Amino acid sequence: MQISKGVEWAAHACALMCGLPPGKGLKAEALARYHEVPGAYMAKQMQALSKAGIVHTARGKHGGYRLARSADAITLWDIMAAIEGSAPAFRCTEIRQNGPCGAKPEKCLQKCAIAAAFHTAEAEFRESLQGVSLVEIAAGVVAESPSEHLRDVGNWLEKEAVSLS
Amino acid sequence: MQISKGVEWAAHACALMCGLPPGKGLKAEALARYHEVPGAYMAKQMQALSKAGIVHTARGKHGGYRLARSADAITLWDIMAAIEGSAPAFRCTEIRQNGPCGAKPEKCLQKCAIAAAFHTAEAEFRESLQGVSLVEIAAGVVAESPSEHLRDVGNWLEKEAVSLS
Repeated sequence: MQISKGVEWAAHACALMCGLPPGKGLKAEALARYHEVPGAYMAKQMQALSKAGIVHTARGKHGGYRLARSADAITLWDIMAAIEGSAPAFRCTEIRQNGPCGAKPEKCLQKCAIAAAFHTAEAEFRESLQGVSLVEIAAGVVAESPSEHLRDVGNWLEKEAVSLS
Repeated sequence: MQISKGVEWAAHACALMCGLPPGKGLKAEALARYHEVPGAYMAKQMQALSKAGIVHTARGKHGGYRLARSADAITLWDIMAAIEGSAPAFRCTEIRQNGPCGAKPEKCLQKCAIAAAFHTAEAEFRESLQGVSLVEIAAGVVAESPSEHLRDVGNWLEKEAVSLS
């Protein structure tokens, strides 16, 4: 089981966008440069976040990205689901219906005990991430960062932020 | 995020082996036939379970597999970890250290807030599966199965079980 790097990148990009002044945004290219990751792959994550309604996209020469709603209304689960999809990680193929002793489909109206246990565990995972908003992530980043680092980030954002149409 | 089919197969194979009499086992070929899945891929899962100490393997003509310990001492997490490994699904690549405002490594002794939140969510997932033993799974299968199905399974096991050396 593996969560793609894109989730890490998207989460960090969203955390950084928490520091933007109202009406301002960042180009995908700037987000990639800030995180020192390939531009095309960062752009792909931003498009997925846009499609999921997590970021607002302004197109064109003066285009860029900003959060589409307030940071307390965006959770880590929202970001993960935008990038990875929200299909269950455990995909039951109903193998209990296979083979010489296969159960009849009409006797399989309830999830099998194995699928049910995995889906419960996934619900715990999901609810845990749903309990963490970008506000908490941004507060965590601020708490763990020396003041000179925060000043550098503020200066960088001022330099790179574009006014979104 | 996706859990491989092998986890489903291994979990069902282990649940079936709960029904074996003491000293008896099943060949990988019989396990594959029971679940109507490709033999080579089922054998691969059984080897992974064996390597993790979940099943006991007897080799040779009279070889086969049985659970290596009592069903109440085997959890769904044990089975999943045997097949998928137990590395974290979220792999932090420390991108906070990258780029023009990268944090210095010596300031990154604590997990970043994003990695910490994912690792907490994964711990919830893991603990949920650690709370489900094969005894509960087997009891669930019995509870959801009509008596004629259980009779068929019992007959099949009697026919296919081999005495393990």
